[in-house]
Amino acid sequence: MASSEAQHQRLSKKKALATFSSDPLSSVAYATEEILLILLLAGTAALHLSIPIALTIIALLFIVVFSYRQTIYEYPNGGGAYIVAHENLGESAGLTAAAALLTDYILTVAVSVAAGIAALTSAFPNLQPHSVFLCLVSIVVVTLMNLRGIRESSTIFAIPTYAFIAGILVMLAMGAWKLSTGEFTHISPPELPIQHSLTLFLLLRAFSSGCTALTGVEAVSNGIPLFRKPESRNAALTLMVMVGILAVMFFGITFFSHFHGIVPNSGETVVSQLARSIFGTTVPYYYVQFTTMGILILAANTAYADFPRLTSILARDRYLPRQLTSVGDRLVFSNGILMLGLASAALIVLFQASTHALIPLYAVGVFLSFTFSQIGMVKHWFAKRQTGWRKKAAVNLVGGVLTGIVTIVITVTKFSHGAWIITLVIPLFIWAFTCVKKHYVGVGKQLSLVGQNPEQYESPMQHMVVMPISGLHRGVVEAMRYAQSIAQDVRAVYVNLDPTATDRLRKDWDRWGKKIPLVILESPYRSVVSPLLNYIDEARAMNPREMVTVLIPEFVTAKWWEGIFHNQTAFVMRAALLFKRNVVVTSVRYHLD
Amino acid sequence: MASSEAQHQRLSKKKALATFSSDPLSSVAYATEEILLILLLAGTAALHLSIPIALTIIALLFIVVFSYRQTIYEYPNGGGAYIVAHENLGESAGLTAAAALLTDYILTVAVSVAAGIAALTSAFPNLQPHSVFLCLVSIVVVTLMNLRGIRESSTIFAIPTYAFIAGILVMLAMGAWKLSTGEFTHISPPELPIQHSLTLFLLLRAFSSGCTALTGVEAVSNGIPLFRKPESRNAALTLMVMVGILAVMFFGITFFSHFHGIVPNSGETVVSQLARSIFGTTVPYYYVQFTTMGILILAANTAYADFPRLTSILARDRYLPRQLTSVGDRLVFSNGILMLGLASAALIVLFQASTHALIPLYAVGVFLSFTFSQIGMVKHWFAKRQTGWRKKAAVNLVGGVLTGIVTIVITVTKFSHGAWIITLVIPLFIWAFTCVKKHYVGVGKQLSLVGQNPEQYESPMQHMVVMPISGLHRGVVEAMRYAQSIAQDVRAVYVNLDPTATDRLRKDWDRWGKKIPLVILESPYRSVVSPLLNYIDEARAMNPREMVTVLIPEFVTAKWWEGIFHNQTAFVMRAALLFKRNVVVTSVRYHLD
Repeated sequence: MASSEAQHQRLSKKKALATFSSDPLSSVAYATEEILLILLLAGTAALHLSIPIALTIIALLFIVVFSYRQTIYEYPNGGGAYIVAHENLGESAGLTAAAALLTDYILTVAVSVAAGIAALTSAFPNLQPHSVFLCLVSIVVVTLMNLRGIRESSTIFAIPTYAFIAGILVMLAMGAWKLSTGEFTHISPPELPIQHSLTLFLLLRAFSSGCTALTGVEAVSNGIPLFRKPESRNAALTLMVMVGILAVMFFGITFFSHFHGIVPNSGETVVSQLARSIFGTTVPYYYVQFTTMGILILAANTAYADFPRLTSILARDRYLPRQLTSVGDRLVFSNGILMLGLASAALIVLFQASTHALIPLYAVGVFLSFTFSQIGMVKHWFAKRQTGWRKKAAVNLVGGVLTGIVTIVITVTKFSHGAWIITLVIPLFIWAFTCVKKHYVGVGKQLSLVGQNPEQYESPMQHMVVMPISGLHRGVVEAMRYAQSIAQDVRAVYVNLDPTATDRLRKDWDRWGKKIPLVILESPYRSVVSPLLNYIDEARAMNPREMVTVLIPEFVTAKWWEGIFHNQTAFVMRAALLFKRNVVVTSVRYHLD
Repeated sequence: MASSEAQHQRLSKKKALATFSSDPLSSVAYATEEILLILLLAGTAALHLSIPIALTIIALLFIVVFSYRQTIYEYPNGGGAYIVAHENLGESAGLTAAAALLTDYILTVAVSVAAGIAALTSAFPNLQPHSVFLCLVSIVVVTLMNLRGIRESSTIFAIPTYAFIAGILVMLAMGAWKLSTGEFTHISPPELPIQHSLTLFLLLRAFSSGCTALTGVEAVSNGIPLFRKPESRNAALTLMVMVGILAVMFFGITFFSHFHGIVPNSGETVVSQLARSIFGTTVPYYYVQFTTMGILILAANTAYADFPRLTSILARDRYLPRQLTSVGDRLVFSNGILMLGLASAALIVLFQASTHALIPLYAVGVFLSFTFSQIGMVKHWFAKRQTGWRKKAAVNLVGGVLTGIVTIVITVTKFSHGAWIITLVIPLFIWAFTCVKKHYVGVGKQLSLVGQNPEQYESPMQHMVVMPISGLHRGVVEAMRYAQSIAQDVRAVYVNLDPTATDRLRKDWDRWGKKIPLVILESPYRSVVSPLLNYIDEARAMNPREMVTVLIPEFVTAKWWEGIFHNQTAFVMRAALLFKRNVVVTSVRYHLD
């Protein structure tokens, strides 16, 4: 696709909602379950606390979103946490936010795909042994779709997102109707053994697990340039609609699950149990399961839009290898997409596709980036001091302080269950970023022409040609002609492995050698390459001229695989010469039919 | 090791016996069992036929060996079946013999290693589930030992070979002693269900399975140049001693197994059962098992000496890629050794390390090569007609006809059990040999200077330089100096990906461009490589001169892995230019600290 088509690839609000909301909305498929799983440790009696925890999380969600809305208007070119933190709080803060977000994007893919396959295996338990395989297939499919380009993907992704929203809302409405008709009554959950007393720590752990519902809401602020004009307004509207739907679904699922005494079990998800108890095992039940799987697998797509965009920004700022900046033939950052696919597939294998095992690693990164981003905005308002800055600064300050506290709560309560991995990975990423930056700065200095003078480079370069040959044939004779056209001082070098062949060559040289001196090298250990390299080293040491051109005559077979029938000496020579200074390597090829 | 050390690597008779006899002698570890396994199909009553079958095989062995003795004297430089058949019967016969031998060498490794591990698991049944893994470890060890060089290996190999011979002979003597004292009495084998009537076909199948005992006797005739002087006499003597020992052990094991009513079972080998019944489960029993394993695993060594030697001869004659002729730093044919290791490891995995499953594939090749080799000798005597040629021709004729009949018997009786694979592989190998030969002959013709005249190549070559650049830096400026030293017509080519950067370059070019024309290429699809390639193609098409030198300025990072931080455009360019005619590729490298 041509660069000029980029504007047409922009997203309408409806499509943007589908693209960016699959991640946050899909988290309702596991957030309630993760809260219940922790509360369950304190026995059945603790389960009712899921309602206040869910309400707290929803409150937090609205605070974060109001805070983020301000960023969207202030950073219309994309106000990811990295940019906001970097600009307002400096390099370290920016890199911390970036590292935090990268870990979170990888986990978004792994958790979403694992939960999506769990929705499938809840409906079809005999697929459960194949979970890891099914997850990997899903990652491959999503990766390939993203390599093909964003607009085509979003058309496909709009359907499952709206289908999921419709399914869950109908389910909740049906539940409310049955509740009102008395068909649906309160059921007490089964009595289960108490493994842990109901401490504040346990409550906070349950809250931390539920906070995964907030992951993904930052996606809109990173993706503003993908919206149609006016970008900021469309993005802010989309964000508000999304959060409203999210709050309704999350509370609804939590409420009905508790009301109906649903308890997590390893074979079936909470949402599946809820759908089964509202609909029975009927067509609508399967509809909910399939759309849940659909939105979860496609939720990974949000990360596929954001991860490569963030790595390309980091690469542009020289914190990551510059290959990550290159937009592929289809206007996507292909290298970043592949990296994300590989990293999330590794997590799936490592954690055996268990949502529950992955959750403790999740959300640490996103809340850390929330915090840096909003504190950065506070600093931004203080620096700018335009009309109404105090109110705006206050909103961001509340958001930043709250998410900062939540970050600490999540890290502490989940530390021993996996969050420690993230506390190691984030500094490791930051270290890598700074190493890469240091490398590029160093290279830039060495290559820079600043302070240099063209006169220094005025004199023509002096060089001699060393031409290793394996015998006399047409390719070699052509190479000799080329050698004589580029230098006065040309030497052919031959390694004596077989005295008979050497004598024959010496004899033929008089006729074919074009007066080029023939140097015969001895090789007691039958190696071809090392005597040649020694000779080149001597030439470099003894020659007063600046450069040694090593001219390698090669013949190229008509079919590439026929190359295996010939010695790879040329290849070995090139590799061996790679790190030698003042050596130019020239390949003169003779093409065979 | 230096080439001059080759003579010191020659083998004494004792060491040669150890090196060459491990293959034939070790076959007694499974030959009897394979005969019994087939006879057992016709029920217990058929088992006594193992005695006449073993005697027939021993008679065949002596006929083959007398026939081969004549080859050893006539071909002191190594009279492998390939050489004898090729010289006397022509190319097709030679290639057939070679293909047959190669299949057999691979099977020697696979069968020997599988049987060796079976000896181990007979003594330690809890290792049985790990058979495949243990076989692969053995192959890796033997391969590595062979890569280190032959003499060192033979010193190591002498010990287990003699230890095995001693162990089996003591076991047979002990059996004979116990027999004479009446301590050891005849036991009837257990009654087992009859699955197959005792047909001539079944008898021939049992005979075919036992013929594996003859595999490996040809190794001496291939390896004559490895013997100390006088090579032929020493080789012939070694062969006779080896065959004598083989006959005694094979008959002894078959006799006592029958006498003691031993029946093959899947968990324990026949030799293990025999050793247990003669010695009890005592130290001597374990000694027999360990030395059996030792000689079998090391029997693979015979193939490791012969396979690379045969492939190097075939490569010298241009039937295989020439890399196989190159003797490594330690005077061994490293590539052949690696090929053999890989092929036999593949067989082990495919056939799950089961000796019994591999046996039907075995011996077809070796008997085919016996036949071609001896018929070749008959023709040789007829052509030479020196004193006593009639007698010599008669000996080889008897050998050739008999082994020819046996080849047919083996192929027919084992066809459906696996021999069909070999009947496919041998023609496939022959086809590959002729393709490779054809390729080399074709290349040789195209490169040959025969009929060419030096005057044709007199005129100096005309060329222009195209220098792709990614910007202006010190490396590029140095490359421009080099370019101006090798040609008059130099052009710098830049791909416009970012108009701002392009404008900056244009401005700087006036100062740094050394009057070299700067060509700016547009790239609507953001590709760097394809506009450059198009430009080079145009230059080739429009330029009246003969050659286009593509000069690629590169910078080399101080550490190789730092290369990943930079675009690999140079690498992609080189690969893309590989198949373009009249293009010389030159890399001018700027080294970074």
